Amino acid sequence: MTLRVGVVGGGQLARMMIAPAVELGIELRVLAETGGMSATLAATSVGDYHDAETVLAFAREVDVVTFDHEHVPQPVLRALVDAGVAVHPGPDALQYAQDKLLMRARLTELGMPQPDWAAVSDAAGLQDFLDTHGGRAVVKTPRGGYDGKGVRVVGAATEAEDWFAALAEDAHGGQLLVEELVEFRRELSQQVARRPSGDVIAYPVVETIQRDGVCAEVIAPAPQLSTRLAEVAAMVGTTIANGLAVTGMLAVELFETTDERVLVNELAMRPHNSGHWSQDGAVTDQFEQHLRAVLDLPLGDPSPRQPYTVMVNILGGPAAGDIDERFGAVMAEHPAVKIHTYGKAPRPGRKVGHVNAVGDDLDDAVYDARAAAAFFAD
Amino acid sequence: MTLRVGVVGGGQLARMMIAPAVELGIELRVLAETGGMSATLAATSVGDYHDAETVLAFAREVDVVTFDHEHVPQPVLRALVDAGVAVHPGPDALQYAQDKLLMRARLTELGMPQPDWAAVSDAAGLQDFLDTHGGRAVVKTPRGGYDGKGVRVVGAATEAEDWFAALAEDAHGGQLLVEELVEFRRELSQQVARRPSGDVIAYPVVETIQRDGVCAEVIAPAPQLSTRLAEVAAMVGTTIANGLAVTGMLAVELFETTDERVLVNELAMRPHNSGHWSQDGAVTDQFEQHLRAVLDLPLGDPSPRQPYTVMVNILGGPAAGDIDERFGAVMAEHPAVKIHTYGKAPRPGRKVGHVNAVGDDLDDAVYDARAAAAFFAD
Repeated sequence: MTLRVGVVGGGQLARMMIAPAVELGIELRVLAETGGMSATLAATSVGDYHDAETVLAFAREVDVVTFDHEHVPQPVLRALVDAGVAVHPGPDALQYAQDKLLMRARLTELGMPQPDWAAVSDAAGLQDFLDTHGGRAVVKTPRGGYDGKGVRVVGAATEAEDWFAALAEDAHGGQLLVEELVEFRRELSQQVARRPSGDVIAYPVVETIQRDGVCAEVIAPAPQLSTRLAEVAAMVGTTIANGLAVTGMLAVELFETTDERVLVNELAMRPHNSGHWSQDGAVTDQFEQHLRAVLDLPLGDPSPRQPYTVMVNILGGPAAGDIDERFGAVMAEHPAVKIHTYGKAPRPGRKVGHVNAVGDDLDDAVYDARAAAAFFAD
Repeated sequence: MTLRVGVVGGGQLARMMIAPAVELGIELRVLAETGGMSATLAATSVGDYHDAETVLAFAREVDVVTFDHEHVPQPVLRALVDAGVAVHPGPDALQYAQDKLLMRARLTELGMPQPDWAAVSDAAGLQDFLDTHGGRAVVKTPRGGYDGKGVRVVGAATEAEDWFAALAEDAHGGQLLVEELVEFRRELSQQVARRPSGDVIAYPVVETIQRDGVCAEVIAPAPQLSTRLAEVAAMVGTTIANGLAVTGMLAVELFETTDERVLVNELAMRPHNSGHWSQDGAVTDQFEQHLRAVLDLPLGDPSPRQPYTVMVNILGGPAAGDIDERFGAVMAEHPAVKIHTYGKAPRPGRKVGHVNAVGDDLDDAVYDARAAAAFFAD
């Protein structure tokens, strides 16, 4: 019996599951939003993931359903579960990735280190929070934000007026999330994998470097991180995976504060950009690990293969021409750099691929990865 | 312009090109012999590779044609070249992989170290060779042999009578190849990659362990090999790749003799079982390297990632049940071992997958890889 994993969503995360699925002999089926997406090679269906019937029909042909993104609506997820489909991560876990207010409240219950936060339903509430947190704060729409969208730093409640107006028009009423503006030294990401039967393993914590709210670079493991903070990060990741009953890969985005704490910023319940380094830098990459985890197979060794791996995103892609046309130059100059492309048309700021450089020397790896990525983005 | 590589043959070598093709964004198209083969995910056509029209139709949709095996007849290869198709390796190179007598003659011209050999057309000729080489020798049919088939150790000319009889019935006349029985310490394999524009790179030479004429294990790099012999092996591989104008991956199977020489045993002009270790053990695995080479892209770094990689074939597969059903046990006991399966039905002696173990300690890697493979074969 060949194991069959169904992935809802045809983006690059689904695409990068193809390689480990082929090697393990797992049949990967993808429900893509449209034709010609990143995961086209494994796309067995095209349809709307908002439609329960579409997703149910897709799910009946696989052993487990998992996801390229966290946007499948709760009623669709519940319909799958009600129909007896194995869904990993399940709706109970995914609600915390879909609603940042739910997430903050649940992490508070779990005692996880977080920025100060509040749910605010009007300008007065926001102004109160600002007044008690140094006059500046981060306001977030609880749902629908990603890559910096739905996030705004404000110094006065009036700066979120449009969002409050939108809330007022929302039949559900609703609130905004406001968070303390954290003084952080850098951003980290802690990935863990968890099986439905309970085993959890933690990847090394990595440093993530954002530009314009989008992940630009990752250094694995995070350089010069104290052993204590690394342990805390792993504990936080493991506690959240268990506490929220996450299955598959979980990424916990963290702030490392200037006073040597880690605070949870965001959660992602799927393979994550901060784990792309693992394709070439870890014994078990996050895409193989995700497949193992959602199939409830024993988890693989998450250890680094070499001291450092540096991942640099290819953002926007070549101004003119195709990624393929840059292969010659990049490969000639950087024979040890690993290139990963997503089969996407270039567009300013769009993630169209990434490169990994692995080695003993961090400076060399950073140089190699940045220089190779620059060839593509020029 | 997405680069398109067409592979003739749908076996496991084509299958293992899928993973690097997806990551590089190369469109892989496979002309499979039948449906449901190992490379089924990338199979865009099913047809007979002996038929020039079939192969030509397939070739028109790709940028370059390459191969899962060396069995495409010369007239078909020549028809492709005549039609302006880029074919790598080309017919001029492939003829030496298809005919062992041609190969021996050409390697003699190139001054390569080989066993003593002769072309013999009758029992008397074979007996002469035996009489001058200690009374025992290896007889090979020049064409069609693989994995020990078409190879026979004989102590008297009468033991090859059936083959001479078959030769006599062959309209082409024809000869058998007879080779000195080499006293070897062990078998090695030297892989090199060569681009059409001429660049060649050599992989570390590996030790191959055969059982019943079939590759069972590979240790990369070959332990305790003298620097001198490693240099000779690399020189031999490079010289043959250049001398025969091989494009793509070339494997040179070698004997390491008891008097510290290397002698060329066989050639393979494609990715090769002796290079499967590179999927997890080298910076650039042989499948990515083959794609780069046949597309005439700059070659990747062939360096090992860690001191040792051990590959063990899964031969025959589970006596009962499916490889997938063994995943739980293997993954639980060997979380760092990498599993590769070919999607083939188990059959005694059939290669249905392999495992790789990578590490600093050779004994540990050998133990891990053998133990993991044994779980599958039991």
